[in-house]
Amino acid sequence: MKTLENIITRVQDSFDKQALMTTMGARMAEVAQGRVVIELPFNPALTQQHGFLHGGTVAAVLDSACGYAGLSVMDDDSAVLTVEFKVNYLRPAIGDLFRFEGQVVNAGKTLVLTEGRAYGISPNGEKLIATMSATMMCVRGKGISA
Amino acid sequence: MKTLENIITRVQDSFDKQALMTTMGARMAEVAQGRVVIELPFNPALTQQHGFLHGGTVAAVLDSACGYAGLSVMDDDSAVLTVEFKVNYLRPAIGDLFRFEGQVVNAGKTLVLTEGRAYGISPNGEKLIATMSATMMCVRGKGISA
Amino acid sequence: MKTLENIITRVQDSFDKQALMTTMGARMAEVAQGRVVIELPFNPALTQQHGFLHGGTVAAVLDSACGYAGLSVMDDDSAVLTVEFKVNYLRPAIGDLFRFEGQVVNAGKTLVLTEGRAYGISPNGEKLIATMSATMMCVRGKGISA
Amino acid sequence: MKTLENIITRVQDSFDKQALMTTMGARMAEVAQGRVVIELPFNPALTQQHGFLHGGTVAAVLDSACGYAGLSVMDDDSAVLTVEFKVNYLRPAIGDLFRFEGQVVNAGKTLVLTEGRAYGISPNGEKLIATMSATMMCVRGKGISA
Repeated sequence: MKTLENIITRVQDSFDKQALMTTMGARMAEVAQGRVVIELPFNPALTQQHGFLHGGTVAAVLDSACGYAGLSVMDDDSAVLTVEFKVNYLRPAIGDLFRFEGQVVNAGKTLVLTEGRAYGISPNGEKLIATMSATMMCVRGKGISA
Repeated sequence: MKTLENIITRVQDSFDKQALMTTMGARMAEVAQGRVVIELPFNPALTQQHGFLHGGTVAAVLDSACGYAGLSVMDDDSAVLTVEFKVNYLRPAIGDLFRFEGQVVNAGKTLVLTEGRAYGISPNGEKLIATMSATMMCVRGKGISA
Repeated sequence: MKTLENIITRVQDSFDKQALMTTMGARMAEVAQGRVVIELPFNPALTQQHGFLHGGTVAAVLDSACGYAGLSVMDDDSAVLTVEFKVNYLRPAIGDLFRFEGQVVNAGKTLVLTEGRAYGISPNGEKLIATMSATMMCVRGKGISA
Repeated sequence: MKTLENIITRVQDSFDKQALMTTMGARMAEVAQGRVVIELPFNPALTQQHGFLHGGTVAAVLDSACGYAGLSVMDDDSAVLTVEFKVNYLRPAIGDLFRFEGQVVNAGKTLVLTEGRAYGISPNGEKLIATMSATMMCVRGKGISA
């Protein structure tokens, strides 16, 4: 049976193997069935030419949040691959801390549709900075771990 | 007048300020009016859970390639912002070296449509690993440098 | 001042001029500031090769729902243009009636980000069949009516 | 063996069953392995509020062009479904005739990535009006015809 504890362990183990997330300083903040939240403190090594977080940084962490939301609803012997995503940027990525939420919208047998939201958090409050919609693929039985 | 030399200087100067590109080890390989190529050697610090380049790494460098392709056709007093992009992943990002091409498809007054291609290069040859379509916005006269 | 009555009149007037919506048999079901719902009864003239509603029909009505959600938050002298949208299809578009919801996510000065949801309604209940994220552009002062 | 004649017959037969394409007045203009062209004469019944072809019309025909490009590289017992597409609009859809090109970029076992281009043709020449990138899914062995 698929317990929440199983899901958390599986998602966390895989996340810990994503060297990019470690390099960026991202940490898993919440895991539930169909929903994952990742946090990232501001890091000047991840910025664009105006000193804001690079859009590519935002996309990379949102992609992981959506991917793990997808994995959290897949069978234990599945691995998750991103088929495609679209990201829309609403404003410069300003903040001391960033929160990336990934949420399953629909879980098919092979494809799982997810949506993501990225927020910049500063003393002035929290702002939505980007949205994502992402298609994740469930890959089974090829000796690929999650 | 807008010379190729101008364009190269402007794109390279802005690229050099993108700390994320430096952190990743990306370098500008070609700049022309409407076209930019960035290269990235394989780097284990940028990988996902199976040891391949993370899709977020691929998206981030493609976003920069498309953004600078966009900037290369904008007026000298403009800055470039990414409005949105979609990326499709075709296969695992395997290679010793990766090439990211950004190309302008249509340059409007405010919005510039670009397309990107990412290739993984290994002794076995070169493979298309991802495609992007990205909308770039030209921002003028706000004291923002390129 | 922008009253709800104003908004409804403006959206309905423009919708009535969209010959495609008339051709398809779509009708405006709800208008609020930042949100629009359009309904479409099943119509065999709008189907694909298996007899379900064509994905292009779904996309077209979702685009109108998102566009009018966008228009509902723009100034009175603005017209709305679709810059881009992505649609994800979750299941065959089966139903006697279809509902298309468009919702504003973020209203910038020039660009408005919207999201859409399409539902198929049958005696068995209601199913989410597609999602959209769409960028709308506000065009001002060019003698273009809404 | 898969001959061009086979492919043409299969694509044309399926296209002829798409009632929406008949309703719109679209016709198959070219079929090759991995490439399909559809044409549509201007039709006032398919317009938006300013009298131009509706973006939804453009998206619908591009979706069919990309879908049939995808089908043209799939096995004979496969049916094609659209997983997702993004469309970018470059200018108003003005023309007496419109041409929609769909092209396969990469054919995987389950997913086929395609790209589309829409052109408006008038006495003044031919203009690119929209681009699409679309993921098609190959569905096998479920008693579904192409």
